[in-house]
Amino acid sequence: MTTVLVVNVNTTQAVTDVIAAAARSGVSATTRIVALTPRFGPASVESNYESHLSAVGVLDAVQGFDGEFDAVVHAGFGEVGREALQDVLTVPVVDITEAAAHTACLLGRSFGVVTSLDRTTPAIGDRLLLAGLAGRCAGIRSVDLPVLDLEANPEVTVKAFVEQARRLVEEDGAEVVCLGCAGMAGVHEAVAAALDVPVVDGVAAAARLAESLVGLGLSTSKARSYAPPRAKDVRGWPLRGGEAG
Amino acid sequence: MTTVLVVNVNTTQAVTDVIAAAARSGVSATTRIVALTPRFGPASVESNYESHLSAVGVLDAVQGFDGEFDAVVHAGFGEVGREALQDVLTVPVVDITEAAAHTACLLGRSFGVVTSLDRTTPAIGDRLLLAGLAGRCAGIRSVDLPVLDLEANPEVTVKAFVEQARRLVEEDGAEVVCLGCAGMAGVHEAVAAALDVPVVDGVAAAARLAESLVGLGLSTSKARSYAPPRAKDVRGWPLRGGEAG
Amino acid sequence: MTTVLVVNVNTTQAVTDVIAAAARSGVSATTRIVALTPRFGPASVESNYESHLSAVGVLDAVQGFDGEFDAVVHAGFGEVGREALQDVLTVPVVDITEAAAHTACLLGRSFGVVTSLDRTTPAIGDRLLLAGLAGRCAGIRSVDLPVLDLEANPEVTVKAFVEQARRLVEEDGAEVVCLGCAGMAGVHEAVAAALDVPVVDGVAAAARLAESLVGLGLSTSKARSYAPPRAKDVRGWPLRGGEAG
Amino acid sequence: MTTVLVVNVNTTQAVTDVIAAAARSGVSATTRIVALTPRFGPASVESNYESHLSAVGVLDAVQGFDGEFDAVVHAGFGEVGREALQDVLTVPVVDITEAAAHTACLLGRSFGVVTSLDRTTPAIGDRLLLAGLAGRCAGIRSVDLPVLDLEANPEVTVKAFVEQARRLVEEDGAEVVCLGCAGMAGVHEAVAAALDVPVVDGVAAAARLAESLVGLGLSTSKARSYAPPRAKDVRGWPLRGGEAG
Amino acid sequence: MTTVLVVNVNTTQAVTDVIAAAARSGVSATTRIVALTPRFGPASVESNYESHLSAVGVLDAVQGFDGEFDAVVHAGFGEVGREALQDVLTVPVVDITEAAAHTACLLGRSFGVVTSLDRTTPAIGDRLLLAGLAGRCAGIRSVDLPVLDLEANPEVTVKAFVEQARRLVEEDGAEVVCLGCAGMAGVHEAVAAALDVPVVDGVAAAARLAESLVGLGLSTSKARSYAPPRAKDVRGWPLRGGEAG
Amino acid sequence: MTTVLVVNVNTTQAVTDVIAAAARSGVSATTRIVALTPRFGPASVESNYESHLSAVGVLDAVQGFDGEFDAVVHAGFGEVGREALQDVLTVPVVDITEAAAHTACLLGRSFGVVTSLDRTTPAIGDRLLLAGLAGRCAGIRSVDLPVLDLEANPEVTVKAFVEQARRLVEEDGAEVVCLGCAGMAGVHEAVAAALDVPVVDGVAAAARLAESLVGLGLSTSKARSYAPPRAKDVRGWPLRGGEAG
Repeated sequence: MTTVLVVNVNTTQAVTDVIAAAARSGVSATTRIVALTPRFGPASVESNYESHLSAVGVLDAVQGFDGEFDAVVHAGFGEVGREALQDVLTVPVVDITEAAAHTACLLGRSFGVVTSLDRTTPAIGDRLLLAGLAGRCAGIRSVDLPVLDLEANPEVTVKAFVEQARRLVEEDGAEVVCLGCAGMAGVHEAVAAALDVPVVDGVAAAARLAESLVGLGLSTSKARSYAPPRAKDVRGWPLRGGEAG
Repeated sequence: MTTVLVVNVNTTQAVTDVIAAAARSGVSATTRIVALTPRFGPASVESNYESHLSAVGVLDAVQGFDGEFDAVVHAGFGEVGREALQDVLTVPVVDITEAAAHTACLLGRSFGVVTSLDRTTPAIGDRLLLAGLAGRCAGIRSVDLPVLDLEANPEVTVKAFVEQARRLVEEDGAEVVCLGCAGMAGVHEAVAAALDVPVVDGVAAAARLAESLVGLGLSTSKARSYAPPRAKDVRGWPLRGGEAG
Repeated sequence: MTTVLVVNVNTTQAVTDVIAAAARSGVSATTRIVALTPRFGPASVESNYESHLSAVGVLDAVQGFDGEFDAVVHAGFGEVGREALQDVLTVPVVDITEAAAHTACLLGRSFGVVTSLDRTTPAIGDRLLLAGLAGRCAGIRSVDLPVLDLEANPEVTVKAFVEQARRLVEEDGAEVVCLGCAGMAGVHEAVAAALDVPVVDGVAAAARLAESLVGLGLSTSKARSYAPPRAKDVRGWPLRGGEAG
Repeated sequence: MTTVLVVNVNTTQAVTDVIAAAARSGVSATTRIVALTPRFGPASVESNYESHLSAVGVLDAVQGFDGEFDAVVHAGFGEVGREALQDVLTVPVVDITEAAAHTACLLGRSFGVVTSLDRTTPAIGDRLLLAGLAGRCAGIRSVDLPVLDLEANPEVTVKAFVEQARRLVEEDGAEVVCLGCAGMAGVHEAVAAALDVPVVDGVAAAARLAESLVGLGLSTSKARSYAPPRAKDVRGWPLRGGEAG
Repeated sequence: MTTVLVVNVNTTQAVTDVIAAAARSGVSATTRIVALTPRFGPASVESNYESHLSAVGVLDAVQGFDGEFDAVVHAGFGEVGREALQDVLTVPVVDITEAAAHTACLLGRSFGVVTSLDRTTPAIGDRLLLAGLAGRCAGIRSVDLPVLDLEANPEVTVKAFVEQARRLVEEDGAEVVCLGCAGMAGVHEAVAAALDVPVVDGVAAAARLAESLVGLGLSTSKARSYAPPRAKDVRGWPLRGGEAG
Repeated sequence: MTTVLVVNVNTTQAVTDVIAAAARSGVSATTRIVALTPRFGPASVESNYESHLSAVGVLDAVQGFDGEFDAVVHAGFGEVGREALQDVLTVPVVDITEAAAHTACLLGRSFGVVTSLDRTTPAIGDRLLLAGLAGRCAGIRSVDLPVLDLEANPEVTVKAFVEQARRLVEEDGAEVVCLGCAGMAGVHEAVAAALDVPVVDGVAAAARLAESLVGLGLSTSKARSYAPPRAKDVRGWPLRGGEAG
């Protein structure tokens, strides 16, 4: 039995539930998904400010988890923080932005991303640039709806995602579409039904890649970038993460 | 039960056997590996000329396979031909060069490749460039030994691979090492034992990624690059592939 | 007297004839053009699958040519196979995709390409990326007509090419237009007449560059990428190429 | 009177003092430097983990500052967090990594960076890549000494920095050297004295650029990437930053 | 008192006057701006030909200046010649194209440029490419009006600049706008008023950066690219520059 | 009869003579080479300063040439000025730096450049970057000898060039060597004899490419970058070029 922790970046339990279901849909029957919600942080993550707050909330959630686990999925599309987890863990860590992009690269020559708010598209672009995959990305489009409004009017949401996905394929030349937002129930099916291209859900893909790395016996290199932090004083840190540094 | 065809690019059965074992080591118990050897083509593939011949040998082997399968692994490190398979198949196709690189990107900030002959390093570089992953590659080094000599003197081979892998890590800054050659039994263990970095075997990684794509219900986009070829005359083609175009 | 072999990638003699005329239009009076049609392979090359089949057809045609020659032109726009020829030949080999692009770079700051089917544009992009010239390419557009239909309705063909070339110049900023398809009689003149930019025919350019390399006493480097293949068994190969490996 | 807040990323007051002095050395007499030390966080920042913790410590320090200010300098070389400050502030924010690189670009064709620990060089590379300046960077070298040991043995430190700077110039082709570490008193003078190239201190450069942006009447664009975060619940956040989101 | 020479690239005094005012608006009260007009050369610089003529006119103006100065601003947007000044001077030299781009990078994730004639946009692109900042540039647009006509009908000019700036922000994703033309009084204010993004005037930014480099005690590296020219014969040179080589 | 003007960038007639011979060695018997020496300018061009002076000397020489010509070769390796000639001429203009690189790309996967002074290597890199060919360049090395000393001690010169060319091939992976300096009699033969790779002389290659463009009926695009300069006042210009602007 492989256990994969899937960590939401916001503090909204309903989003965590959708993420958990997506992760479960991606893995084998022998893999257990444990979905975590940070104890603190913003209700949704839609800015650089919130992204940086969420990074410590995610760290706190993982470092406070009481149990064994074999891999971690960082379920923030475009969010920072994956590297911090890699430093302090010995199990593999998979970011959903990168998982979606790597998976899409196996399916088509170029991929596009549809996300929620327009203002988050630059951060997604930054993550892809750092991942070295920006050259395969045909475009990043948004429906320009806040994350927590997506569930409020599902019909509008679905229609907007389908429309932007269509433009990625028809105008930008994307051959695969990545859904750039965790926690959008129903959108995946609708986009896949409307367009004749593969649609990649980052959470499902990341959970599967995490399971795969465990199966291959591979984990994060500790050679340089992600070596364990040196033992040192962490002064006045009010969060759990402070003790573990 | 998922069936993954793993196709050797050369016509040497002993290499196919090693590839099959590597692929089996990478997949779940519920996945069946079927390893194919082309009916014709070079005994080893170490040049652009042989690479292009092997592409049709691989096509012929897959098109002539009498049975059901869920995914294909193209087991030529640096070889051409993955795109051709994607055109004619509806199941996912994974190339071992790209599988190794994508997997390595999940494990460290940069990776290096060790391969057999020096003259094949440019072709590997080309595959990584087309895959958009050249920016994450810290170096491609070779032991400069012909593929079919690798097994002849295993001690020399292993020592040479360890030495080049060490230089990738210490001189080039690679944090992960990819073995850039299918069919090198024992090398993986030796390099992993000698160096404190993850070592990725392309065949095992590709087989696992192929299984994962099947599990995720994803396959090659037919939107543009890999659309099925239009029906047309193929004149005088002496190979099986000719009938299927 | 310099002899340049110009090899069509498809098996349609009418296309070979047009290619031969284009090549002749590009070279000096003292250069002889010999145009070859592969003995086998697809009637037109419009997919990765067909491109890989054509590569061995082209190899077979050149290796089976009974006569002396000083250079070879690989006349497939966007097709693979140039590198394989370079391995087995000592005379220079020029690919028409690259010839068009290099020539265009001498004439303007950026160039565009108009080709036949939309699905072939990614492969052209890949060839330009490998050639290092993607940065100078302002766009690749297609008329989205099958190669063998181009001659059927010349007026429609010419109009479509002119329209896409105009968009390359006016919308994409191309200063030079490359015709990305061998064997389109009349199109060159029409586009050049309609637009006030240089129009480069890849076949004519490649034939001239091949002649120029011969005149400069230069040929393919055998230092690494294109070294002759090592002597080895080629098993069960039904084509002429097999004996020469 | 212009006031520039200069925020240390670690919680070591002695480092803040050195940073403050460096900042003062860079600005006009009419600019006031106020140096802040985060209330919590690691004593030194030398890993991705610590970098992400420091980002919220820096946010907390700035958001808790009781007074007027015209610009902020984020004084972590290679650290994350600049974007988060830009979201929540209307005054300009300058990161010392980027300030050093932009300044160096005005002085020579390529620059190099010398930093403390080897493991921090990839993070510096990432910051330069996101800044679009990686192409001007000839190399990033380290003395491989922990930040807090640098002051312990100043002679060793200075000698090590001079040696690595010399290699940047002589082996890597750097024409300008950036000191990739805040808080190294004496190093700047020593390197500048030993080598005949400009030596850029990131803190001084950033303070001067911050002052310059104020003088030019320019501040962060709020058009997209750095728009103010939308008002929303921040649950259970134990830090000051929580209230301001 | 710091003295900054600001050199117009054309021979039109009215343009020099506007440039001088822009430079003065950017610097501290303690910095003196001296604006120079070349003795010879074109009345406006709008082609590569004129750009190369202007380079020697600028050299002549600076080398003929009778007085002390601490820095030089090369006030040609997209023009060549900055490197030549750096060779022969020991004080820092700042080009307005690069100054605008570097400054814009501190204010937003991507910037756009609006310039006068369409035909000058490629040269601006070349300068940004050489500066390593092309990746941060979202677009270069022109109003397609000749430089010397800009003042003739200020209302038309302003409206055209605002329109193109708006398209940079709304269509191209620019978060900051650079005015790509020296000597356009009134345009800066109008664009800044119409759009809610920072607007960077290259002359003001360059003058401020020049002052800043002086304040930081930094000047051009003489290590390689900009080493002083070796003493040698300059034959028959009719310009002042000839004596100083 | 095709006439190609080959313009030296320096004012040393002996260098012009060597250049003329190299050009003649590259072209057909039916092409006439006319070699020009500028009336003024530096005796050798080894800095950005001299490069910019030479650009107007070259313009003056071409504009003052009394006769018909079909193409122009700009014979400065790494020098600026090609674009200025393209603006004012309707015949094709070929730069030797670019001609060498384009030719080398047809011969091997990567090329290297050997030039005279180390300080000129950055300018060569800039020309290759603008040409879009930097990605194919494995290295630029220098013998670090002044241009006019190269002929003084031919044995030392030849030995130094061979040594650097060997390092390009063996250490940098170059498969083709370009001689990055006009006017080095004997070096070409020596390097070609010592190393088993193609050696490209930029002058011969450029002359041949110029002849080829004429033969193909192609010339510079006037669509945008190289449109003729608008008629305007050129004030006080003491050179011939002034009248023609």
